Amino acid sequence: MNAITPTVTAGPLQASRKIHLAGTAYPEIRVPLREVSVHPTAGEPPVTVYDASGPYTDPAAGIDIANGLARHRTAWALDRGDVEAYDGRPVKPEDNGNLPADKITPAFPVAHRPLRAKAGRAVTQLAYARAGIVTPEMEFVAIRENLGRMAGTQALLRDGEPFEAEIPDHITAEWVREEVASGRAIIPANINHPELEPMAIGRNFLTKINANIGNSAVTSSMAEEVEKMVWAIRWGADTVMDLSTGRNIHNIRDWIIRNAPVPIGTVPLYQALEKVDGIAENLTFDVYRDTLIEQAEQGVDYFTIHAGLRLHHIPLTVDRVTGIVSRGGSIMAKWCLHHHRESFLYEHFEEICDICRAYDVSFSLGDGLRPGSIADANDAAQFAELETLGELTKIARARDCQVMIEGPGHVPMHKIKVNVEKQQKLCGDAPFYTLGPLVTDIAPGYDHITSGIGAAMIGWFGTAMLCYVTPKEHLGLPDRDDVKTGVITYKIAAHAADLAKGHPAAQVRDDALSRARFEFRWEDQFNLSLDPDTARLFHDETLPKEAHKTA
Amino acid sequence: MNAITPTVTAGPLQASRKIHLAGTAYPEIRVPLREVSVHPTAGEPPVTVYDASGPYTDPAAGIDIANGLARHRTAWALDRGDVEAYDGRPVKPEDNGNLPADKITPAFPVAHRPLRAKAGRAVTQLAYARAGIVTPEMEFVAIRENLGRMAGTQALLRDGEPFEAEIPDHITAEWVREEVASGRAIIPANINHPELEPMAIGRNFLTKINANIGNSAVTSSMAEEVEKMVWAIRWGADTVMDLSTGRNIHNIRDWIIRNAPVPIGTVPLYQALEKVDGIAENLTFDVYRDTLIEQAEQGVDYFTIHAGLRLHHIPLTVDRVTGIVSRGGSIMAKWCLHHHRESFLYEHFEEICDICRAYDVSFSLGDGLRPGSIADANDAAQFAELETLGELTKIARARDCQVMIEGPGHVPMHKIKVNVEKQQKLCGDAPFYTLGPLVTDIAPGYDHITSGIGAAMIGWFGTAMLCYVTPKEHLGLPDRDDVKTGVITYKIAAHAADLAKGHPAAQVRDDALSRARFEFRWEDQFNLSLDPDTARLFHDETLPKEAHKTA
Repeated sequence: MNAITPTVTAGPLQASRKIHLAGTAYPEIRVPLREVSVHPTAGEPPVTVYDASGPYTDPAAGIDIANGLARHRTAWALDRGDVEAYDGRPVKPEDNGNLPADKITPAFPVAHRPLRAKAGRAVTQLAYARAGIVTPEMEFVAIRENLGRMAGTQALLRDGEPFEAEIPDHITAEWVREEVASGRAIIPANINHPELEPMAIGRNFLTKINANIGNSAVTSSMAEEVEKMVWAIRWGADTVMDLSTGRNIHNIRDWIIRNAPVPIGTVPLYQALEKVDGIAENLTFDVYRDTLIEQAEQGVDYFTIHAGLRLHHIPLTVDRVTGIVSRGGSIMAKWCLHHHRESFLYEHFEEICDICRAYDVSFSLGDGLRPGSIADANDAAQFAELETLGELTKIARARDCQVMIEGPGHVPMHKIKVNVEKQQKLCGDAPFYTLGPLVTDIAPGYDHITSGIGAAMIGWFGTAMLCYVTPKEHLGLPDRDDVKTGVITYKIAAHAADLAKGHPAAQVRDDALSRARFEFRWEDQFNLSLDPDTARLFHDETLPKEAHKTA
Repeated sequence: MNAITPTVTAGPLQASRKIHLAGTAYPEIRVPLREVSVHPTAGEPPVTVYDASGPYTDPAAGIDIANGLARHRTAWALDRGDVEAYDGRPVKPEDNGNLPADKITPAFPVAHRPLRAKAGRAVTQLAYARAGIVTPEMEFVAIRENLGRMAGTQALLRDGEPFEAEIPDHITAEWVREEVASGRAIIPANINHPELEPMAIGRNFLTKINANIGNSAVTSSMAEEVEKMVWAIRWGADTVMDLSTGRNIHNIRDWIIRNAPVPIGTVPLYQALEKVDGIAENLTFDVYRDTLIEQAEQGVDYFTIHAGLRLHHIPLTVDRVTGIVSRGGSIMAKWCLHHHRESFLYEHFEEICDICRAYDVSFSLGDGLRPGSIADANDAAQFAELETLGELTKIARARDCQVMIEGPGHVPMHKIKVNVEKQQKLCGDAPFYTLGPLVTDIAPGYDHITSGIGAAMIGWFGTAMLCYVTPKEHLGLPDRDDVKTGVITYKIAAHAADLAKGHPAAQVRDDALSRARFEFRWEDQFNLSLDPDTARLFHDETLPKEAHKTA
């Protein structure tokens, strides 16, 4: 290990034990769950909770950041017989911002030859699902979503208003296959990200959350970003987006992916823009295409692609209070207006699909025209783009590509539900993935809360994944504390949504914690909470004596 | 000024100017509003916002805590000719916990003879409203709620889903009178709290928030509590409840009320319990009644009274996960079970009404059986008590008493709306005043957020006032920082509710801030926010240069 090897936060959470469940069709898979034990006086079994934290919370796992996580999925891909290893695209100086050798973040120490689909083959989970194949990824997801509950073995609490959701009491691998085949769920799982512990995003699954990390031109190093990723999943982030916009983008991303047990998403346009020195009008599809292949070979699991913003949509934004606030949307609008041409992402969308199909990179179709203020919510521009996203969904699915759809943004409470309804209708029930939404604009510094309100509601209405917002939104880049605050806030929103939908696994944890509260089992209350450290700390402030905690 | 005089936070918020508007029927009233100016380059008028902060943010006001605020409402009460000053109840040793002289918080330095209604007169705002009298309090409220907007002078944004709310474009004093007369709104305004700047609580008014303060047996002094009150209203608390349970309750309350421009609420049962050394079964109506008079003479504006918890309701709680979690509810249940008798609050309710009627203390009918967990939400116990609260509402109104109704608690999202619907139906549209509700139990340390989600939704559905929850809920007593976090979170919830209801005054501030954001007027963005200090601080962390802030 050399001096640059970052250290990350590791070790189990309090009173928690990581367990691994094996598959039936695939006995070799090891599905992680976390068991939280309670005080013996309670006479209760441990509470089993979803665990996105990966091997970092497993004392039995040897963590070596310079080597990366175990590549357990490589065998799964090879077993399918439809992929080939190849030399891959050589790393180019512009991939890391043309930095001189002494300023560059070192390349990840271990090189792996990338895999891609053999000619003419589709290696996506959607292709397999449509072919009736239950993959190890699907069985992994099924076991994970059950949270250890077995079919017919316990009374389920099914109190809730699920709207269009149909969540079964017990989840089977075959049911996961059906959900993926229908397009209602995706399993983002690039064949070049074999370190991944598969997870699903769909309205009939547990509500997921995403945390954004990423360096910028002025701040933060590889070590900080790797730790932010590990830190975000420790507290429950189900996926992580690397939104880096500075130098060293390629190498930092490699370190992140090789150590990530969760799907990693990116906005390839950001790196493409760096390659043309930040000048939007100099973007070309060649640069963009090359960036897609670069990132697909590294193992990025989903791409945000703003292909729905078309030239003729742009005039719809002129009367807005906050114009175009999506970074990807602004870049593309600038390009379209400068060249007075249709978006190259829209025009080349089929070619983009062919790349995604060869690696199983899922689409996260970006909402470049999402509202940036209450005043602009649900306007003609936003919904016109959503219609195009529906059209693109069909094209991508025809090529066996997995698709989810990004959503707003800033939306007052009374306009939230219609977003989900329109998205589901226009985009063939593709999973919805929303940023917040913020339900008011007047609280910068507290936008994790303004957006957490909207996130809980839109999750209830059927949004499959909630992209977190931190307290620094609109003001600066989140630090480690902000990442944690954002993740915990969004775990609250996602769980509140699951409760309101009547998810059969949701209320177990609430009830266990409430019983601990009523019986003054303080330690159990802390350990069962989303953030035991903070709960314990706050309690200590006024009642410092141990005696009070076990009263 | 002597050594014990507390200092409080004073001075205007950034870029803000306090203005006072005069009445038409009552030209002498001075209704405070806050004007936030924006940068001249914006070419926009200042934004006028509601201002609960009192004279503390007015540089022209001389603040002297040992003298108290100006007693401007005394003349209003005397002018009505239906009150009389009298010597009042002498302070007894048990009012301050029987403390020895050297441990007692000094009495407030200035003594005032209390007022009460002349024999047979009702001096409540409800009595006046029913008699067709528009009081100065009503005109004050009308001007305040308009936020400076004049009838017909500006285009109004009326986008929203108001459910049962009917908010006029422009609010007149006569309309306020009608709302009070109908019981849909209350103006908590004890005749012995002449320092009060009147405000209204009702579903057709701006959504209000309450902050709880109060000492406990082990912590905090009079000086801290007075500062907490001033601090809470600085950030927007519309009312403050003093929930003190320690010693010195009487004297601390005097200091708070004499310096409070907002209504002060209490739970008289807490002090009554202190008078019987904390032994619930030793409570008597005599002790309770004496406490009501003590507090009414001091100027408490509303009493939480748990008269709806009846003996026969208690068995309904036996199968609950968290039993009875309301402190007032637990005390009364203990009393009822010990004596196996009907609640003395229920049995003596008419006598309690007579006291409230003589001082215009509003009722906040307590929900002693509110659910303490998701599992117990909307259960038979909760709704049985709500029915009794409806019955008590009729009794109180028949005696011209103003009434609002307290609500839960812990409620998952899909069960929130029915709470408002049932409360409005059973309690004759009396204003609803809810604690949260928390939409999940699994996040101690973050219950301002779990409850802020529920508060925003229940506010939208028609709740008139939201009682804040701080990050220390369930864990300890809030400190000054927690008070601020709780208040800002609830201002977010209340404002989000007003936006969703389509309140004509709500979106103006969002739009002004959003324009500032889009034009990179950073200082305007900070100044228009709910918490300029935090917004400015967070921005500084990554972009410290002044140039960046005015870009």
